[in-house]
Amino acid sequence: MFFKRVRSEGLAHISYFLESEGQAAVIDPRRDVGEYLDLVRGREARIKLVLETHRNEDYVSGALELANATGAAIYHGEQLEFGYGNPLQDGQEFGLGELTVRAMHTPGHTYESHCFLVSDARGPFMLFSGDTLFSGDVGRTDLTGPDSLRDLSEKLYDSLHHRLVPLGQEVMVLPAHGAGSACGHAIGKREITTIGLEVRDNHALQLSRMDFIMSKMSEGMEKPPYFERMEALNLHGPIILGEIPRPAPLSPRQLKEAQEGGGLVLDVREPHSYVAAHIPRSQNVWLEGIPVFGGYLIPYGRPLVIMADRLEEVEVAVRYLIRLGYEDVIGYAKGGMGPWIMNGMPISTIPARTAQEVRSRQQAGDPLLLVDLRDRREMEEGVIPGSTFMHLGKLLERSSELPADQELVLFCGSGPRGGAAASLLRNSGIGNVSMMLGGFAAWKRGGLPVGPLKNG
Amino acid sequence: MFFKRVRSEGLAHISYFLESEGQAAVIDPRRDVGEYLDLVRGREARIKLVLETHRNEDYVSGALELANATGAAIYHGEQLEFGYGNPLQDGQEFGLGELTVRAMHTPGHTYESHCFLVSDARGPFMLFSGDTLFSGDVGRTDLTGPDSLRDLSEKLYDSLHHRLVPLGQEVMVLPAHGAGSACGHAIGKREITTIGLEVRDNHALQLSRMDFIMSKMSEGMEKPPYFERMEALNLHGPIILGEIPRPAPLSPRQLKEAQEGGGLVLDVREPHSYVAAHIPRSQNVWLEGIPVFGGYLIPYGRPLVIMADRLEEVEVAVRYLIRLGYEDVIGYAKGGMGPWIMNGMPISTIPARTAQEVRSRQQAGDPLLLVDLRDRREMEEGVIPGSTFMHLGKLLERSSELPADQELVLFCGSGPRGGAAASLLRNSGIGNVSMMLGGFAAWKRGGLPVGPLKNG
Repeated sequence: MFFKRVRSEGLAHISYFLESEGQAAVIDPRRDVGEYLDLVRGREARIKLVLETHRNEDYVSGALELANATGAAIYHGEQLEFGYGNPLQDGQEFGLGELTVRAMHTPGHTYESHCFLVSDARGPFMLFSGDTLFSGDVGRTDLTGPDSLRDLSEKLYDSLHHRLVPLGQEVMVLPAHGAGSACGHAIGKREITTIGLEVRDNHALQLSRMDFIMSKMSEGMEKPPYFERMEALNLHGPIILGEIPRPAPLSPRQLKEAQEGGGLVLDVREPHSYVAAHIPRSQNVWLEGIPVFGGYLIPYGRPLVIMADRLEEVEVAVRYLIRLGYEDVIGYAKGGMGPWIMNGMPISTIPARTAQEVRSRQQAGDPLLLVDLRDRREMEEGVIPGSTFMHLGKLLERSSELPADQELVLFCGSGPRGGAAASLLRNSGIGNVSMMLGGFAAWKRGGLPVGPLKNG
Repeated sequence: MFFKRVRSEGLAHISYFLESEGQAAVIDPRRDVGEYLDLVRGREARIKLVLETHRNEDYVSGALELANATGAAIYHGEQLEFGYGNPLQDGQEFGLGELTVRAMHTPGHTYESHCFLVSDARGPFMLFSGDTLFSGDVGRTDLTGPDSLRDLSEKLYDSLHHRLVPLGQEVMVLPAHGAGSACGHAIGKREITTIGLEVRDNHALQLSRMDFIMSKMSEGMEKPPYFERMEALNLHGPIILGEIPRPAPLSPRQLKEAQEGGGLVLDVREPHSYVAAHIPRSQNVWLEGIPVFGGYLIPYGRPLVIMADRLEEVEVAVRYLIRLGYEDVIGYAKGGMGPWIMNGMPISTIPARTAQEVRSRQQAGDPLLLVDLRDRREMEEGVIPGSTFMHLGKLLERSSELPADQELVLFCGSGPRGGAAASLLRNSGIGNVSMMLGGFAAWKRGGLPVGPLKNG
């Protein structure tokens, strides 16, 4: 046998390629399926199975894409009416070379959630646990809405304790997410785990049934707005791309035309480059921020044009975007910002402030409001007294709460979210925004006053 | 944390890259260290530790190479006097970002063998088990010679049962070899494992102490002849390459000069191409056969010239060769066999026979002897009546047992060892050799007579 973890950084998503005697399965494939196809070519294998642990919420599934390229059969839980693939029954078995893969219905994260237990001649040894059991945490139970929260929390407890734990301490567990995912708030940094390690170390497995259910019901995790679109795409099946879209290189004039025709310029450069000089009305999301914040900040339905420093960054951006269901990338700025500037095209800037500068202006009584974009856990490191807290994903809907007569100084842990947020607000008509370079890290290292996070 | 298995196919060797918070360790590095260096660059990490589970026998260690490139500190068991690096003490701990790595002295495979147990804040979870514990098998105890066989077998039992098993069923085990290695005869196909899975499924862990010791003492595994050279190199430290050697492209005339100057032409093409037309006195070892059989068939101390169909194959061959301690690759045949042939240079051929042809000639009473190069386990599939069995690695030393008055038809499972063997015998002055195309597989699929393997 051969197995490989295929990671999608940012999403902290992990899919798996499993092969035995030339027969392969892919568990929870991502939409850019090139890496799986390279693996079958390199190993002279055939992908016969695509197994989905559940309808994914945080990325567009590559199941159809992979089935289209390879003829593989797709399976997913029968408890949800998918527009493609085949229904899975609890206990259903699949042969894969010398291995047997058994579907285990483990509702809880969602109703149709399944795990896949792999056995060889000596017995079961490896569990693909999807979003049911992570290293250090268990799946969230709130995605189907408040009405099913209790029911799913109860089901998750039972799936974990009556189906997974009895498999035995020795069984290896390969979950669909690692640390940093929006699908579990306490996923640990261990990269692979076992039933026994989770029984020993996972906080959620230490709780009584009632405490577990109460804890899941009060979890209160963010649900990124793009999850609904992902859920719909993964239920009905996304369009098949065939290959990664190749956007066209655009001259400044062509780029302007694309923008005038309704296109959005997505500027994936570092925020400090963006704020210094950018195309008016472009949206900044630094490259590695796309998987995490793209779904919050980039509207669906508008053609996109990428602004990047280098061509390779355009390619990475396109891969990140198609995973989130943005297929309509029509072009990229040929040569980056240089040609735009040299052609005398219009340019916007957003003030970038140092932490010291912000502090001095604060002390001088300048009317400015610091907007902290970090999440609760980051704030445990300390907060800047007098600042306002807003999650980057909630910024637009809460923008009416922001004062109109003050400069809004946006900052996060070290900078990038500040740039994206400033660009978002500016494009929504809130002109008096700036970003703080280096964010909270620069403030703290500068020895400026820091207070504790207050509850509530 | 981040961890990656870096596999060396053929050797079935697995090294590991482990990183936490920018600090990395490499366990049992191979000599071509580019992949580890790519990993540190990609992750903006620093390799601070090179940990060797034992003095390796089957490949040249990359420890010095990696230390030279990164400044990492090398550690290996203090029970052997290494010419480089630092001695390890039982229980010694190393910090690696948020992880702690503890050395556990586990003699048995060799006296200085160590395992490395990785813990995070929640406790131990991952064991790098070297050649002490594999998936499905345990290390061999015969490499230090017959005098220490019993002592090491006893020590291995104690290391396994009193040191590793007590770690707990839930701990993941990451061994230094997978299936196909010369370092354990029953290594299973599972790619990673746990203490609990091995306690449940590993044949060697089911035995009483006495049965275990008896079983290890009667194992009778092949010790490839090149192991001794590897052991010496890894004790004293191999020369540092700095980078992968780049052999020069040679014209037919230059190639001939190199050969006349004592160079050996190593022909890494497929055997059916080799036997059809090759440079006289060249040695055939098909490319993927180098890691497994190179150490048997290629003499140390002679400069090597590679004959391959494509340049990429030359590069792969060089990587395989340096892992086995062959650094003196001086050139390769530019353009492959074509220029040699077109320049009217001398050419040798070896007859290639089909299975049907061999059978007809057998029936017609032609004097020929079938020499089966497969190993014992492969022969359980069946044997060709009247054939002689010889391991490819023993062929030369046993060649006097072969009859001088018959054609020797060399074959293996599907062909490649037959070509390498025919080339070896021919170059040793045994002229009347041929190979059987498709080996035993073609014989069997052709419906020709097959008998059972007899004991003894």
